[in-house]
Amino acid sequence: MDALFTTNNLWMMMATILVFIMHLGFATLETGLTQSKNTVNILFKNATVLPIGLLTYVLWGFNLMYPGEAFAGGFFGFAGFGLSLPDGANDGGYNEAYTYYTDFLFQAMFAATAATIVSGAVAERVKLNSFLVFTLIYVGLCYPIVGMWKWGGGFLNTLEIPFYDFAGSTLVHSVGGWAALAGVMLLGARRGKYIDGKIRAIPGHSMPFATVGVFLLWFGWYGFNGGSVLSADPGLVSLVFVTTTLAAAAGAIGALITSLIVIKSNDLTMVLNGILGGLVGITAGADQMGATDAILIGLIAGALVVCAVVFFDRIRIDDPVGAISVHLVCGVWGTLAVGLFGALASGAQIISQLIGIVSVGVFCFATALLIFYVLKITLGIRVSREEETEGLDIGEHKMRAYPDLHKNVEEVYS
Amino acid sequence: MDALFTTNNLWMMMATILVFIMHLGFATLETGLTQSKNTVNILFKNATVLPIGLLTYVLWGFNLMYPGEAFAGGFFGFAGFGLSLPDGANDGGYNEAYTYYTDFLFQAMFAATAATIVSGAVAERVKLNSFLVFTLIYVGLCYPIVGMWKWGGGFLNTLEIPFYDFAGSTLVHSVGGWAALAGVMLLGARRGKYIDGKIRAIPGHSMPFATVGVFLLWFGWYGFNGGSVLSADPGLVSLVFVTTTLAAAAGAIGALITSLIVIKSNDLTMVLNGILGGLVGITAGADQMGATDAILIGLIAGALVVCAVVFFDRIRIDDPVGAISVHLVCGVWGTLAVGLFGALASGAQIISQLIGIVSVGVFCFATALLIFYVLKITLGIRVSREEETEGLDIGEHKMRAYPDLHKNVEEVYS
Amino acid sequence: MDALFTTNNLWMMMATILVFIMHLGFATLETGLTQSKNTVNILFKNATVLPIGLLTYVLWGFNLMYPGEAFAGGFFGFAGFGLSLPDGANDGGYNEAYTYYTDFLFQAMFAATAATIVSGAVAERVKLNSFLVFTLIYVGLCYPIVGMWKWGGGFLNTLEIPFYDFAGSTLVHSVGGWAALAGVMLLGARRGKYIDGKIRAIPGHSMPFATVGVFLLWFGWYGFNGGSVLSADPGLVSLVFVTTTLAAAAGAIGALITSLIVIKSNDLTMVLNGILGGLVGITAGADQMGATDAILIGLIAGALVVCAVVFFDRIRIDDPVGAISVHLVCGVWGTLAVGLFGALASGAQIISQLIGIVSVGVFCFATALLIFYVLKITLGIRVSREEETEGLDIGEHKMRAYPDLHKNVEEVYS
Repeated sequence: MDALFTTNNLWMMMATILVFIMHLGFATLETGLTQSKNTVNILFKNATVLPIGLLTYVLWGFNLMYPGEAFAGGFFGFAGFGLSLPDGANDGGYNEAYTYYTDFLFQAMFAATAATIVSGAVAERVKLNSFLVFTLIYVGLCYPIVGMWKWGGGFLNTLEIPFYDFAGSTLVHSVGGWAALAGVMLLGARRGKYIDGKIRAIPGHSMPFATVGVFLLWFGWYGFNGGSVLSADPGLVSLVFVTTTLAAAAGAIGALITSLIVIKSNDLTMVLNGILGGLVGITAGADQMGATDAILIGLIAGALVVCAVVFFDRIRIDDPVGAISVHLVCGVWGTLAVGLFGALASGAQIISQLIGIVSVGVFCFATALLIFYVLKITLGIRVSREEETEGLDIGEHKMRAYPDLHKNVEEVYS
Repeated sequence: MDALFTTNNLWMMMATILVFIMHLGFATLETGLTQSKNTVNILFKNATVLPIGLLTYVLWGFNLMYPGEAFAGGFFGFAGFGLSLPDGANDGGYNEAYTYYTDFLFQAMFAATAATIVSGAVAERVKLNSFLVFTLIYVGLCYPIVGMWKWGGGFLNTLEIPFYDFAGSTLVHSVGGWAALAGVMLLGARRGKYIDGKIRAIPGHSMPFATVGVFLLWFGWYGFNGGSVLSADPGLVSLVFVTTTLAAAAGAIGALITSLIVIKSNDLTMVLNGILGGLVGITAGADQMGATDAILIGLIAGALVVCAVVFFDRIRIDDPVGAISVHLVCGVWGTLAVGLFGALASGAQIISQLIGIVSVGVFCFATALLIFYVLKITLGIRVSREEETEGLDIGEHKMRAYPDLHKNVEEVYS
Repeated sequence: MDALFTTNNLWMMMATILVFIMHLGFATLETGLTQSKNTVNILFKNATVLPIGLLTYVLWGFNLMYPGEAFAGGFFGFAGFGLSLPDGANDGGYNEAYTYYTDFLFQAMFAATAATIVSGAVAERVKLNSFLVFTLIYVGLCYPIVGMWKWGGGFLNTLEIPFYDFAGSTLVHSVGGWAALAGVMLLGARRGKYIDGKIRAIPGHSMPFATVGVFLLWFGWYGFNGGSVLSADPGLVSLVFVTTTLAAAAGAIGALITSLIVIKSNDLTMVLNGILGGLVGITAGADQMGATDAILIGLIAGALVVCAVVFFDRIRIDDPVGAISVHLVCGVWGTLAVGLFGALASGAQIISQLIGIVSVGVFCFATALLIFYVLKITLGIRVSREEETEGLDIGEHKMRAYPDLHKNVEEVYS
């Protein structure tokens, strides 16, 4: 019993730091898929969003997401500021699989993810200060409130057929995706993206970093999904590892085939986003699927990502890294898939999944739109035309990401 | 018992994801040691080879490598398509240390390694489609069949003195290395590598990514070797960690000293390949050696890598990343070392090791040569002269890895 | 009991490889914060310092740091060369939480850290050979001797109120920091850093690699601090994870606010070094603090880093990566903080902490100064003016880190 508790807690701690390393994955992916003149800005956002997410979560977020009996309602609850370690909670009395501190930290690592997803979509033109204020509010308030609806015992968990979202296709990925959509709609496209009715590609500046990002995200996802078992249960965790792996692999192949058909190219960024799409897609039901289900969910997710990227480009939703396609589209897909494949598949489950998708979507899209709108009419959310052309690195940070390279080029030109 | 099972299974799952991250190590190493005009192509291969390896392994590879009693023979066996979870297999009835799914996934992560090793050696001139077809066949069929000879209970395991290959110096690394040699022989050298009887260095474009790759491979190797204990047995796994570490460290020093003598230079790529050589060298006997054995095996492996790189260059085997020197030469060395050092050292063991090395070598080299030859006379295996000069990124993918950099340079020239 | 031992040992092995990956973090951080003409040299140092540290530690370092009863004195002890596995030590008889080999390897991974810290501070002008000789002596002798004073049972551990340094704010980080200070003082500033009484910024060449480095260090720090619990004790390790995380996050915010005030800029490198400062600061007392303590220690560490970087620049201590500010200043701060915050806070503890800080500081600074001085008057410690201008990559290694980029620029100029 003591040994089993120690093992379970060890896995939850390992899962926690695997989720941590996903933030490096997001940072390098976003860096790779954008232009080098905005790289410092992107790294700066990633290096500050995680600390903001962690600190707001310890100050109030954890008690907002898991209010317990304090104020517990279906839509909102709050158990007070700061951490309040119950007696003996850190010696096994809190839970049969992990300590209070482990619980807090695992959940805290998830929190910043939502804002990080947004960061990619609004990159290369959003004002730094406004984005950090948005992060503070959205990660500090919206994310934990919505998470409570299901994971904190709220109304989505008490439906007759409860809404099911194992590790957060809806509660994490679509929460980020909806805000990304809202942000992009209010910000508008990057200058030069749509000229004379034509779509112009603005390629990312480093495919190696983009690839590093995707592999690190895949690596960390074993903690994201595997840790969501909330114990080291051998059967369940190994099943989740297998479904997660196969969905990612199938996502790559689905995106590869689809991009050969649709855009007739061996497109690396599509394969990379296909992997991520497969991962987001399996997240809602990773513990409910068999190997075949996981492969099908991943294949479809990979195909969806390619189509969604093309679609959003056509309707002039300019998302430099494809965050909306990956996290929102595949987040919705993965959530629905719980009703279509695996152990929970049923018509009634599909209804519950739709209730969850829609209620989270309406709340998140509306609040994100409101926050960004208020910021737009106060601080402003978009950098000046000159700053955007020159790059946010100089405008916001007075630094360059690769001074050697930029210096050489400048000297050559002058 | 339940707790011990959970701990053992946890370690096997952690080892699995450590082997996963080796694929990022291979991707960044190969990226760093080749030219920037071929980087997208290299990343694309790495991002698709792993999914292909995983999916073929779930579809038939696992049952080809571990056929159990079904069709079990010394040379070939097959237990049917797909995964067939035995009753209770995922709750402890399958094995005393891990579940069926854990077993599958740990083995699946190894499978793609063989093709990834080949990828580096044939880089910068191989046709993408042909390489992916090769991967499908070689990883899907050759790797599991050869692996079965020893790990699946085949004829190498039933020798009077059984062939010994703890984690795959022969069964993984030389399997990749033999195919790399076959591929390079059929492809020929890169244009400009040998001019007027002289060897011209074609340096890799990013030493930081090459270094990242080696450190990630070293990191992942703790899972590759440590997981091959097949439990979390404290004494054995910690011994394997120590021998693995010391062989890697000694490989660096062996390569450093040798390169100072042979090429009279503090050559970073030699030290990096020396680390990898030490790791490959210890892999066959990591659980059978003491600290001194491990250091000696690593030192010799590091020296061998430097000499082999120079040797293959002289005989015009053009291997951009040194994959043949690292994985084939040190794979053979490590396999032989089991008969020379440590607990199994004996003349009879050396004979068994030679039987394993030769039988695997003949089969792998011949089949790889056959596959590449058939591809050569059908799809073709080498890109055009123009495409090779311009780079495979444009030719195969219509993308550049660093558009900012390449754009600047192009503008400067035009 | 057997299961618990296996779990504890598993965590210690995982912690070991997390400390291993910190060496990749140091390598990429130092690469990112220096100029591209010195990148090969920096990677070479990082790829050889770790092997040197591991091999000297197995040859004599471990028995110097943990002499047991052999020669045991308060200031010096030695238990003989090589590893001497006690009977049954690798099967549970050695310790109730881990094997002999695990103990050795966890400690060995720490050893090279001290020299790696120095590497950053003396970068871009130190002679390679002299630096490697320094590493051999400092890591091989000074680090284990000082470590013994506390962790090996020496005089700092037998004070009436024992000096407390949980995971090495003083014994690892300040040991590196003092030598960095000594090295920089004897070497002098880089050419062009101080011209006509003005401080000129020499920006690092890759902000992405610098950021990768900091995230990898943060990731590895969970092993550095968490492993220092010396078991997988759920309450203690999860507490250490929480304090480590919150100090890092608060370090980022502390540095952000301070740099906005002091240098009026959203400076990425300050935020990155603030994270590291927070991590170094919490290291001495990570198991003694609550969440609030950790946040305060981190905030102050982050502020200190910014002020220290500005201060050392003013007094012309040219430290390209800020290693002295991070590891020495925050190492001292974190050690003092044990007497100011948390469970051990008391006046008497502060005195003991000061005794530890000063005795380690005097010994390390003096020996480092002596080693560097002897090297200066024999081999020389600084490269020539020409080599420094052209870059150490050509001078010491006859290679470039990014040949594609450099070639283009050269061709453009010629």
